[in-house]
Amino acid sequence: MNIKPLGARVVIKALEKEERTKSGILLPDTAKEKPQQGKVVAVGPGRTLESGSKVELEVKEGDTVIFSKYAGTEVKIDGEEYIILDGERDILAIVQG
Amino acid sequence: MNIKPLGARVVIKALEKEERTKSGILLPDTAKEKPQQGKVVAVGPGRTLESGSKVELEVKEGDTVIFSKYAGTEVKIDGEEYIILDGERDILAIVQG
Amino acid sequence: MNIKPLGARVVIKALEKEERTKSGILLPDTAKEKPQQGKVVAVGPGRTLESGSKVELEVKEGDTVIFSKYAGTEVKIDGEEYIILDGERDILAIVQG
Amino acid sequence: MNIKPLGARVVIKALEKEERTKSGILLPDTAKEKPQQGKVVAVGPGRTLESGSKVELEVKEGDTVIFSKYAGTEVKIDGEEYIILDGERDILAIVQG
Amino acid sequence: MNIKPLGARVVIKALEKEERTKSGILLPDTAKEKPQQGKVVAVGPGRTLESGSKVELEVKEGDTVIFSKYAGTEVKIDGEEYIILDGERDILAIVQG
Amino acid sequence: MNIKPLGARVVIKALEKEERTKSGILLPDTAKEKPQQGKVVAVGPGRTLESGSKVELEVKEGDTVIFSKYAGTEVKIDGEEYIILDGERDILAIVQG
Amino acid sequence: MNIKPLGARVVIKALEKEERTKSGILLPDTAKEKPQQGKVVAVGPGRTLESGSKVELEVKEGDTVIFSKYAGTEVKIDGEEYIILDGERDILAIVQG
Repeated sequence: MNIKPLGARVVIKALEKEERTKSGILLPDTAKEKPQQGKVVAVGPGRTLESGSKVELEVKEGDTVIFSKYAGTEVKIDGEEYIILDGERDILAIVQG
Repeated sequence: MNIKPLGARVVIKALEKEERTKSGILLPDTAKEKPQQGKVVAVGPGRTLESGSKVELEVKEGDTVIFSKYAGTEVKIDGEEYIILDGERDILAIVQG
Repeated sequence: MNIKPLGARVVIKALEKEERTKSGILLPDTAKEKPQQGKVVAVGPGRTLESGSKVELEVKEGDTVIFSKYAGTEVKIDGEEYIILDGERDILAIVQG
Repeated sequence: MNIKPLGARVVIKALEKEERTKSGILLPDTAKEKPQQGKVVAVGPGRTLESGSKVELEVKEGDTVIFSKYAGTEVKIDGEEYIILDGERDILAIVQG
Repeated sequence: MNIKPLGARVVIKALEKEERTKSGILLPDTAKEKPQQGKVVAVGPGRTLESGSKVELEVKEGDTVIFSKYAGTEVKIDGEEYIILDGERDILAIVQG
Repeated sequence: MNIKPLGARVVIKALEKEERTKSGILLPDTAKEKPQQGKVVAVGPGRTLESGSKVELEVKEGDTVIFSKYAGTEVKIDGEEYIILDGERDILAIVQG
Repeated sequence: MNIKPLGARVVIKALEKEERTKSGILLPDTAKEKPQQGKVVAVGPGRTLESGSKVELEVKEGDTVIFSKYAGTEVKIDGEEYIILDGERDILAIVQG
């Protein structure tokens, strides 16, 4: 992965619907604020606190996460689409197991 | 439960109306900002303060809570519907006993 | 009372007009932002400061208070109506004696 | 006075126009944001800082003050009208002597 | 001067156009956000910081200042008009010499 | 220069177009948010931090700067026009050499 | 480069489409919030924290970055167009290798 997100930003590879069903979590197509599942591919160093230290993000590379569908910015890297979003505001939860 | 909420987020299983009546608390159907009752199924690590430490949430797994009905994001996990919301802003109170 | 408010929230039992008159304080029916009188029935642990400690609320169970009428969320507990509101923002004063 | 304001709130008894003229200060009837004169009858403990300590208000019981006319909430106590307002934001100055 | 401003507030006596020209500074009549010149007649103790200490204002009694024309509240004291404004936000500069 | 800006304010003398071209920097006439070049003629003591100390401005008297054209307030001093603006928010860069 | 950005500002030279394709990252032309690629040509000293110290920017001269297309202010220096933007808010990621 040749992209390094800044601050609290995280790069996500969105999962297709079929992949999502396998993990047992299904996100409704009709929800007003549609969440989506994806895989974390790169994580920024975190937000800087007033003290000058950084808040490490709670997600790491390889995590499967639920995020707000309309959040973030889409980019195409080597032919594949990714989403850059705010790892604190836009990621809701990690899907385990 | 194979989902781990981030930050101050909490995963809630909304209670059906019949279940609510049993606990002696009834939430009006006509209220403008409709609150709802639910059971806490997962709790995030809490909001990060400027000092870098976290504020533990006041709710824990298994608590029955009153929350703002239109708050949060709906997700379907293993066929069941859950709501992910902000445990500090959207949960109003714990129903005891 | 089987309800425990979170954060700076307070549970209030609104007083009927007749009850209000007895305490010598009458709130006008025509005011644009109508305040109301009520009795405090439950008090949360308080708002969390950036230092991590909490600000105890200035009201306690049993206090008669003046609060903003349109603030808060109505709930019905064991057949009686209560209001859950923000004890710092929505309660204006304690009525004494 | 059987009312105790919370936080930085202050209870004011508005002065009639005739009373105002005596103090030598006259507030225009035509100003867009009309200020008004009044007497402080009760003072809250003050706003809580992030450090947890309180900022004492700069006014005290008995002070004659200039405040923003449309600020605050009107209440009637024992047949007399009072105004509860924010002592830091809504009171502009103390009229001396 | 029998008026004591609170917080960061400052009482200003606006200067007439003729007086302004003498100091060599002329403020345009056509500017969208019209600034105005005036003399400081009273100064509040300053804004309270989160640490609890106050920020002393950079102006003092007798200073000639440039301020935003539409800022503040007009009051009439002993027959003369004054303006009470925010000494940090509404005063732009001190005119020297 | 007989004007002393307060806080983070800076007094700027806008440069004419011909002067700007000499420095090799040309600002487009068609840009939506038009920036402009100017010379710093006076600098305030800086913004006050919550700690009570001040943030010195990054510009000094004599610097040529790029600033947002529609920012600030125009004043006429001794027949010449100047602009008073916020030295942290409205000045984008210093033009060197 | 004879321009020195202030605070957290960064000067960017936008890359043409052909140049972008070489790095393997392609930004869609149809995206609602169009990101863009560019080269960092100058970096400010960073944002000042409440403690008075500065947060160094995560980008340095020569970095290829992805930034929000509509962010910032365009300037023309020695005949070439540059963009001055907020290095913390408007730059999303660094493109590596």
